[in-house]
Amino acid sequence: MTDHKRSMRRRILQMGAAAGAGLLVPYRDALALDTPGKLGAPLGPYGERSPFEKAVRWRRDTKTPETGSSFTPIQDSVGTLTPSSLHYERHHSGIPTIDPAQHRLVIHGMVERPLSLSIEEIRRLPSLTRILFLECGGNSGSEWAEKTGVDVQRSYGLLSGSEWTGVPLSLLLTEVGVKPGASWVIAEGADACRMERSIPLAKAMDNSLLAYGQNGEAIRPNQGYPLRLINPGWEGNTNVKWLHSLKVTNQAYMARDETAKYTELMPDGKAWMFTYEMDAKSVITFPSGGQTLPRRGPYELTGLAWSGRGTIERVEVTLDGGRSWVNAHLHEPRLPIALTRFRLPWRFDGREAVIASRATDDTGYVQPTREALIAARGTNSNYHFNGMKFWIVRADGTVTNVDA
Amino acid sequence: MTDHKRSMRRRILQMGAAAGAGLLVPYRDALALDTPGKLGAPLGPYGERSPFEKAVRWRRDTKTPETGSSFTPIQDSVGTLTPSSLHYERHHSGIPTIDPAQHRLVIHGMVERPLSLSIEEIRRLPSLTRILFLECGGNSGSEWAEKTGVDVQRSYGLLSGSEWTGVPLSLLLTEVGVKPGASWVIAEGADACRMERSIPLAKAMDNSLLAYGQNGEAIRPNQGYPLRLINPGWEGNTNVKWLHSLKVTNQAYMARDETAKYTELMPDGKAWMFTYEMDAKSVITFPSGGQTLPRRGPYELTGLAWSGRGTIERVEVTLDGGRSWVNAHLHEPRLPIALTRFRLPWRFDGREAVIASRATDDTGYVQPTREALIAARGTNSNYHFNGMKFWIVRADGTVTNVDA
Repeated sequence: MTDHKRSMRRRILQMGAAAGAGLLVPYRDALALDTPGKLGAPLGPYGERSPFEKAVRWRRDTKTPETGSSFTPIQDSVGTLTPSSLHYERHHSGIPTIDPAQHRLVIHGMVERPLSLSIEEIRRLPSLTRILFLECGGNSGSEWAEKTGVDVQRSYGLLSGSEWTGVPLSLLLTEVGVKPGASWVIAEGADACRMERSIPLAKAMDNSLLAYGQNGEAIRPNQGYPLRLINPGWEGNTNVKWLHSLKVTNQAYMARDETAKYTELMPDGKAWMFTYEMDAKSVITFPSGGQTLPRRGPYELTGLAWSGRGTIERVEVTLDGGRSWVNAHLHEPRLPIALTRFRLPWRFDGREAVIASRATDDTGYVQPTREALIAARGTNSNYHFNGMKFWIVRADGTVTNVDA
Repeated sequence: MTDHKRSMRRRILQMGAAAGAGLLVPYRDALALDTPGKLGAPLGPYGERSPFEKAVRWRRDTKTPETGSSFTPIQDSVGTLTPSSLHYERHHSGIPTIDPAQHRLVIHGMVERPLSLSIEEIRRLPSLTRILFLECGGNSGSEWAEKTGVDVQRSYGLLSGSEWTGVPLSLLLTEVGVKPGASWVIAEGADACRMERSIPLAKAMDNSLLAYGQNGEAIRPNQGYPLRLINPGWEGNTNVKWLHSLKVTNQAYMARDETAKYTELMPDGKAWMFTYEMDAKSVITFPSGGQTLPRRGPYELTGLAWSGRGTIERVEVTLDGGRSWVNAHLHEPRLPIALTRFRLPWRFDGREAVIASRATDDTGYVQPTREALIAARGTNSNYHFNGMKFWIVRADGTVTNVDA
């Protein structure tokens, strides 16, 4: 028996003898199908999901839906990827409609040989593919405040996972010849506000990607079609969509989205700027706020963990409000800077349970409590909240936020 | 410099000095954007691809589009996954519309405790997630004949890759208690024809999956919503969609799709039945038949390799009709029984090139030539063609099938 099979068998044993525990019910002569014995729908050119599936991105009601954010329904997620149709959004002036045949990327500034490239030219360069998470710097920002998010979509849903394909930015920077003294790359999008962020040259030369592919096809318009800068592990806002210009400079631009936004005011009055890396974090997606367990018995508790610094090494789960912790099972292979699904067999026996998860990454960093995070950073900021999230499963099976 | 970066750098050097080779053209003062400086589209609940993207599944014109197959446009693929909307289809009586709240899976036959499970109950069991390829047993069946497929979609497109999530079948077979003497599991779908296949009990206990998730959401109707049997590495037809019944027996059923179909007639008149495993195989998707290279210069040659038996160890590419071979770069991590993207920097210098790929898996099996395959198996069969595919890049940049 392989290790993998032993682990799976252990998991079903952990659930209790499922057949005797009310989950697996006897054969009910269900062979008589309701589905009619007639031809179904024909083959189709481009498929859709089932009309019975209703999960959608959530957004606040607003008069400016071009400048807001929408949240991935991670309570309904399975596996490690997010369907492109449900990838979270954060736009600053709406989604431009770009003809890829007209679009160009310009690389200029402190370089020997400025370049202008079409998408077709970029797709002819050496490429690579990586599964990576993307998380808004403001994800779970609501958790800093007293009244925290009531469901996992609205509190942790500025988070998605995709397979990205593109060209390493380092290759093109090598081609253009960066001049001595250069230290930053200013990335600018082709949206109406020309959103821009300052990226240290060291990051751009390390692992930034000029991505044109997402989950096996062209990047979706909501995610930057036809070209997006991907900075693995860094806050979503730095992953500039509809990428149009890369200007090499010797200083940061102090752009709106790195001064008015995405800067954190500490308790001592100092401002933390350029806080790019997303710390290790995890959250239980089932059971989570707003859900109801239909009955007692075995369940699979599950959630997502991720770290901008590398690989998730461990996820611990508490069922008793933090007094004791057990290791959850982690999806393998664990990829660096990717969503890592964790799972734990669990029995709901009708007693209230206070549940949370705690991630550790391969740098040894352990996800803090909300209290420890606030003690260190205060509550002036909306960004980079990565504290643990506690849910209460109540005796009647309803699940709520601890502070609700 | 990491190994990875060395490899990438090597790849751009392999392309020749790109800037001097006509690919990277100088800066053309393209900063003046065509895109208007006005608000774009608002946030949306469920996204769509760009209207500029036109790739669709291809199918033959037929009077019975409920019983045919449609082909993934792998010539447009990037990365290792197939968008669910473009996953190939092979249906025998159309796509049923199934309400997951009404659907049940029955496990019966030679078992101690027959069971009937709802989808909600199945989703409460221990689950796992795997990225796997799925390939129709008839994929590239056209290649057996003299006149082979003219483009890679029509000849190799009954092939897709997805992330599947579900419950190991072994867990439920253990729960129901398989009786002594049982050796097969008959899987039946809820489509109008009640398509069924006989699966050896050993496979079902090894790694078959009751999948409800695909690429992060519920399986699409075209792929078996709400439940599909996934048999990793086995011909697509055994991965029964709209799974409704699993009957444990002591013999195979000799069902229509294992006798009239998916059986191979050998040159000596014997029929090979239950030829489940898909052999190691690969194909170049770019450049491939029907495409045209717009000009001379560097390109990234790319394609897909896969093996039903395990991991792809090596993909070799020839540019001179099979006289010499070089190793292509393989996407990492290489996952067992998953599509493995290969890439090779290449310069088109205006001379005719006859190109092909050859995969080797971790059992040591090497993908054969078409000629060797036909010498061994004859041409009576339409199934399990895994010979190499040669394309000709002509002097004018057009790409055709060798036999066209």
